[in-house]
Amino acid sequence: MRKIDAFNHFFPAAFHKRMLDLASSQKDMGKRVRGVPLLHDLDARLRVMDAFGDDYQQILSMPSPPLESFAGPADASELARIGNDGLAELVRQHPQRFPSFVASVALNDPDAAFTEARRAMKDLGACGVQVFSNVNGAPLTSPGLLPLFDVMAECDLPLWIHPARGADMADYKTESVSQFEIWWTLGWPYETSVAMARIVFAGLFDKHPHLKIITHHMGGMIPYFEGRVGHGWDQLGTRTTDVDYGALLKTLKKRPIDYFRMFYADTALFGAEAGTRCGLDFFGVDRVLFASDTPFEPQPGVYIRETMDVIDRLPVSDAERARIYAGNIAALCRIGL
Amino acid sequence: MRKIDAFNHFFPAAFHKRMLDLASSQKDMGKRVRGVPLLHDLDARLRVMDAFGDDYQQILSMPSPPLESFAGPADASELARIGNDGLAELVRQHPQRFPSFVASVALNDPDAAFTEARRAMKDLGACGVQVFSNVNGAPLTSPGLLPLFDVMAECDLPLWIHPARGADMADYKTESVSQFEIWWTLGWPYETSVAMARIVFAGLFDKHPHLKIITHHMGGMIPYFEGRVGHGWDQLGTRTTDVDYGALLKTLKKRPIDYFRMFYADTALFGAEAGTRCGLDFFGVDRVLFASDTPFEPQPGVYIRETMDVIDRLPVSDAERARIYAGNIAALCRIGL
Repeated sequence: MRKIDAFNHFFPAAFHKRMLDLASSQKDMGKRVRGVPLLHDLDARLRVMDAFGDDYQQILSMPSPPLESFAGPADASELARIGNDGLAELVRQHPQRFPSFVASVALNDPDAAFTEARRAMKDLGACGVQVFSNVNGAPLTSPGLLPLFDVMAECDLPLWIHPARGADMADYKTESVSQFEIWWTLGWPYETSVAMARIVFAGLFDKHPHLKIITHHMGGMIPYFEGRVGHGWDQLGTRTTDVDYGALLKTLKKRPIDYFRMFYADTALFGAEAGTRCGLDFFGVDRVLFASDTPFEPQPGVYIRETMDVIDRLPVSDAERARIYAGNIAALCRIGL
Repeated sequence: MRKIDAFNHFFPAAFHKRMLDLASSQKDMGKRVRGVPLLHDLDARLRVMDAFGDDYQQILSMPSPPLESFAGPADASELARIGNDGLAELVRQHPQRFPSFVASVALNDPDAAFTEARRAMKDLGACGVQVFSNVNGAPLTSPGLLPLFDVMAECDLPLWIHPARGADMADYKTESVSQFEIWWTLGWPYETSVAMARIVFAGLFDKHPHLKIITHHMGGMIPYFEGRVGHGWDQLGTRTTDVDYGALLKTLKKRPIDYFRMFYADTALFGAEAGTRCGLDFFGVDRVLFASDTPFEPQPGVYIRETMDVIDRLPVSDAERARIYAGNIAALCRIGL
């Protein structure tokens, strides 16, 4: 059964070199990147993939942190172009391994980002664009960034949302969320969920009913807290006096929770079977996509293997399993199967 | 089948009056409290309970916000005593309805809080103590608060952790988490999860192996993100250069995730069936407790009914269901069945 890994990370060589130069002052990121050879060593990467057979393919994207968080607008925009050119070249060289790639953009220069998004999708063959859950702490739905959603609707390709540390966390006065890497384990899924909420309440699914947004880590916290999302946001405004949220609710065409079901979600839960079932229950079999988040695993290939094991045990038909593994993402990205 | 609702909220009359006086400047809280009569109207409360039959009982606790967040140390401590006396009186008057209550404490006066916790459990018959996930933004595991865990171990009764808005959220510069009540829907479960992480990494389960901690809303984000909690925190330190987390991991006797399974979790997911199954899978049938979080529901009794419907459909034996409904909490709190 063909398996297209929809969210995993790789640095093409030229991007990797330029990024390390720019990020030399960011010791934590340097440590993380240098400690994971599979992130930039193509031969090592292909060897791990070989172990999973010819059916296993990857749609490549570049990992966090966001480009805009470690370089100014000009450098970050250049880095996006270098990276997108590099990924496009990898796809050309290894079409059996990498059926497509997800473009990066630097949202600290929005106009350059919209231009690069179009170039990558229209000229380079990117099958979508990756952004992060916030842009240096500002919501992804800040007014100046909204044209990005129009670009995605125009190209009819998905927007991948990767979590990023939020401004609230960076500003935590006691630095306490820095402790124990809470910002990663818990902060990232929280950030993903917040970005989803902003997209819903900005009315973007009413403006673009066919908008395709892929959320990492199985939709953040939304499926597990379906009850809070449903009953809680139906009562939006009962905890607030200074904003008329009742009026906001009336501008939306559906219940808030119904919009949350319009996102796509990947299976990158690192082997959490009960969580994967919960996410599948929420989004349904047409909106769940196989992804491993490789290579940030304890040993090479562990997340790919554990994620496949979970999907193989899901209580779905083989036809449904094939959609989760490849059919859904292929349809979204217009990849021939 | 007897059903003991382990986490739901009520203000005794004297507490309610005094609290409204103190909170008169806090318009959002006043709005929330005044809009929910079942929070303080005993007759209305008993009528709703009657609809669920004689088998349905409630262990009462007072709701958020934390006492320390809206009054200085002296007033907050007095409020705790007034509230605990009031709940104890309700338990005496209605033992068939309210088999016990959870004491409140004001942690902005830690010594008074430890004294009140002992008084409530030893003299008033409280079956445990409720705290919040942070104390005016400081971790529950701040050094000055650690004796509380010793008190709980000494009394061998559970500590209930209710979420509260975190300092990170209050300080969010753009005020953006105030938008759309994100602090409630998503922030609360995030806060619960952070508090759990702090308790684990403070080594409190090594110090007190029989420590009993009840987490609201099915253990926050932990069960859904079991894979991040497991694999991620096994790799604690790989994302950090300035702290030697490897040394911390060596001081712990178990893998981090194994401590997270030592918490108890309630079923207050507001009718989320897939989430409840996911939480049950993580914590196991001996550590899941029926709770509704009534009365913050869209219509009186809705959360009680929806939560029971979910529990009734869980794929467990009737003996296991009876433990979730009443046996587990009765054993924890030494309530006769």
